[in-house]
Amino acid sequence: MLNLFYKKNNNVKIIDVLNLLKLKNNFKNHKLKINDIKDIYTAKKGDITFFHSNKYKNIISKSKASFCLTSKNYIKFIPKSCKPLVVKNVLLSLSKITNLFYPNSVNDNFDSNVSIFSNSKKFNNIKLGNNVMLGKNVKIGRNCLIGHNTIIESNVQIGNNCSIGSNVIIRKSIIGNSVNILDGCIVGKKGFGFFPNGKKNVKYPHVGIVIIEDNVELGCNSVIDRGSLSNTVIGMNTYLDNQVHVAHNVKIGKNCIIAGQVGFAGSSTIGNNVMIGGQAGISGHLKIGDNVKIGGGSGVINDIPNNAIIMGYPAKEIRKFIKENK
Amino acid sequence: MLNLFYKKNNNVKIIDVLNLLKLKNNFKNHKLKINDIKDIYTAKKGDITFFHSNKYKNIISKSKASFCLTSKNYIKFIPKSCKPLVVKNVLLSLSKITNLFYPNSVNDNFDSNVSIFSNSKKFNNIKLGNNVMLGKNVKIGRNCLIGHNTIIESNVQIGNNCSIGSNVIIRKSIIGNSVNILDGCIVGKKGFGFFPNGKKNVKYPHVGIVIIEDNVELGCNSVIDRGSLSNTVIGMNTYLDNQVHVAHNVKIGKNCIIAGQVGFAGSSTIGNNVMIGGQAGISGHLKIGDNVKIGGGSGVINDIPNNAIIMGYPAKEIRKFIKENK
Amino acid sequence: MLNLFYKKNNNVKIIDVLNLLKLKNNFKNHKLKINDIKDIYTAKKGDITFFHSNKYKNIISKSKASFCLTSKNYIKFIPKSCKPLVVKNVLLSLSKITNLFYPNSVNDNFDSNVSIFSNSKKFNNIKLGNNVMLGKNVKIGRNCLIGHNTIIESNVQIGNNCSIGSNVIIRKSIIGNSVNILDGCIVGKKGFGFFPNGKKNVKYPHVGIVIIEDNVELGCNSVIDRGSLSNTVIGMNTYLDNQVHVAHNVKIGKNCIIAGQVGFAGSSTIGNNVMIGGQAGISGHLKIGDNVKIGGGSGVINDIPNNAIIMGYPAKEIRKFIKENK
Repeated sequence: MLNLFYKKNNNVKIIDVLNLLKLKNNFKNHKLKINDIKDIYTAKKGDITFFHSNKYKNIISKSKASFCLTSKNYIKFIPKSCKPLVVKNVLLSLSKITNLFYPNSVNDNFDSNVSIFSNSKKFNNIKLGNNVMLGKNVKIGRNCLIGHNTIIESNVQIGNNCSIGSNVIIRKSIIGNSVNILDGCIVGKKGFGFFPNGKKNVKYPHVGIVIIEDNVELGCNSVIDRGSLSNTVIGMNTYLDNQVHVAHNVKIGKNCIIAGQVGFAGSSTIGNNVMIGGQAGISGHLKIGDNVKIGGGSGVINDIPNNAIIMGYPAKEIRKFIKENK
Repeated sequence: MLNLFYKKNNNVKIIDVLNLLKLKNNFKNHKLKINDIKDIYTAKKGDITFFHSNKYKNIISKSKASFCLTSKNYIKFIPKSCKPLVVKNVLLSLSKITNLFYPNSVNDNFDSNVSIFSNSKKFNNIKLGNNVMLGKNVKIGRNCLIGHNTIIESNVQIGNNCSIGSNVIIRKSIIGNSVNILDGCIVGKKGFGFFPNGKKNVKYPHVGIVIIEDNVELGCNSVIDRGSLSNTVIGMNTYLDNQVHVAHNVKIGKNCIIAGQVGFAGSSTIGNNVMIGGQAGISGHLKIGDNVKIGGGSGVINDIPNNAIIMGYPAKEIRKFIKENK
Repeated sequence: MLNLFYKKNNNVKIIDVLNLLKLKNNFKNHKLKINDIKDIYTAKKGDITFFHSNKYKNIISKSKASFCLTSKNYIKFIPKSCKPLVVKNVLLSLSKITNLFYPNSVNDNFDSNVSIFSNSKKFNNIKLGNNVMLGKNVKIGRNCLIGHNTIIESNVQIGNNCSIGSNVIIRKSIIGNSVNILDGCIVGKKGFGFFPNGKKNVKYPHVGIVIIEDNVELGCNSVIDRGSLSNTVIGMNTYLDNQVHVAHNVKIGKNCIIAGQVGFAGSSTIGNNVMIGGQAGISGHLKIGDNVKIGGGSGVINDIPNNAIIMGYPAKEIRKFIKENK
């Protein structure tokens, strides 16, 4: 939750939270301010957190958070210093409260703070194309190239020696050195997260960012979504080909080679030195090991151990795939 | 066939039609004007229609149309008040005649009637980015945001409270309220329809439009083609992720969730509350029922009944898929 | 290797080559200039070429090239008039030397020589949208339309009667007559070629171009990469739908129909009159015959003979596919 990108509402009071969640008010001090919303690892005194799985009961037991969104069955694990706010749907409530603190993390409205720059003293180490738009507080390192019609939204940071193509859009992102982002890429848009809700879905706030490490290349028209609560990361020296889709919270390791039209569903973790053939798809919440090779067109729906070579839909060990398809 | 978007040639005479189709002239009044080209449901006196399938013989028998494109075997079904124009290839002839009436429906030449707008009195309820281009007679509701470099072509209508991203192109479309169209989307281009024809294909005119209902979200770099004779429709509260492809005449119901890189071939109908996983493909002319769930990477090549859960290529009942792939 | 697009370094001396490859210098004339780097078919006296496969031993034996990159086992095939430069990795060395001759073929930095044009005397036969950027020495034929925000980089050639959409980027390409390039296409970017190399990959130079023949149509947001040493070619009257990916060196024949989201990996050759259904993928270095039909969603991993009808992943004869999937 980088406050660099998301302006926090510093006036959230406990009564606002209770009203939003339609909870009964049994607190004396209605106007008590809440500092921030945090996960149970990082929440401090004054913060609100959330807890909805036995997996984390040891962590919540030591939390210093002042309030905790939870459901009935989990109240017993919450320490006495922390006041439980009991709701039916913890994640939906979390979404609503996050939205209260970070109202500009839910939508991807265009950044109206950008200005059209031409080469000027302000950016005397970089070369700008025509109609380049840069937001407030954008930081761009030495020897960078920013192509025509490209939009770098407010607070984005770009390292040295980067080449950004034309018609690129970058928001809520931190870009390393010697990164190459080719034409038409969209980096840092909100992920595809929401709660289905009858006639009008409730959108999940995305307060994570995109981190692109050194020497990465992103192919044309690729789209990299930012994280919801954690970040989306593309590791050092990893190359993506054209039209790749990386969903929210995905973490790709170092030295990976990702061919054209590959798609990653949300929250999967990819190891180092992984090679993925064209059009392969990686389902959500998977762990792909180091040095894994995935054949083009494969559909990966299970965790994959280190050094495996797989192919098929569903993807399996390649010798098995070849044998079955003789 | 919305004349809002397609300027009709009001000077089409029967002799023009006969010449174009290389038909013998056995009409007395060469200069008789034809009003419009319509399907057999909507054609009135003065119009030309077409008929080439027994399925519609009861409808053609009651048609008030003055002329009908048809082939030899179907002449007997056409009422006496309607003059048959007998051709070898009804659809190819239809394409040529539609082109005669609506010459600007065949190609997607850029709209030269757009102007670059900045925030002005004309649009005082909306917020415009830089280099926004709006065509003639564009209608945009209250509280809308239109991002940088975005092009809204002539006659497009957008409801209230919409957020349109940057680098978006919208043509021949009617957009509802509270719609969110993310960066890089292209909405309303002509579909991929043509008649293979030796050294130069004959393009099929696209006189349909795209209708986006309330509360829809379209992900980045998605492309939604307009209809050929009917419309392409995205139903209320349906969300599409990034890089989705929706071909001409597709109708998607309400409350659907369509993940990244999904592709719909032409003329399929998708029910309500349908969930489709990433990279799945839906073949053309299919009917997918309500509440259907389609696994990521699936290839759907048959109609699917309500409430089915399917996966695989070709997609089958999910328990069968899992059993076969153990 | 068209010098129209790539400025050649005319000052490459043998000592530069030896230093770059870290080879011992056993030449008398350190300052001897080398003219160009060429393949073994086209290399002349004064050029450097490369040789690393028995398949070409008859050709190298007749080569007039002055120098040849090769490895130990192949020295014996090289004629006496040609001096072998013995390296461990011929292709990596070739990449480095090509880069020395054509330093601007490795990256796709934006073309800073473009200017924003409005309709002017210089281009009085064509119609330009707003914010159109044209590079130096761009040639555009009669009756062309160039849409808004489109960038045509230096030296690109476009024939007569072409319609280029909005937000298109074209570089290092030669476009025929009556070509239709729809919105958001990116034509001529460098291919996805590099040598994995620890913390920083070595990018492969791309000195080929894209050739689009007459009457071709490219769908929205498609990406066509240029060739590395040879060219990428889209044959006459071939139509591509939206979001298609064509990798470097691919050659597609005439009168083909390629549906949405299809992907071609590098260096494959597709015959004439080939039809490919949506989302199909064609692996690299394959030969697909004439009149082949490939079902939607197929994954093609083998050469396909003329007239075959195939489907599946891996793609097989369609009757076999249907039988196996009953």
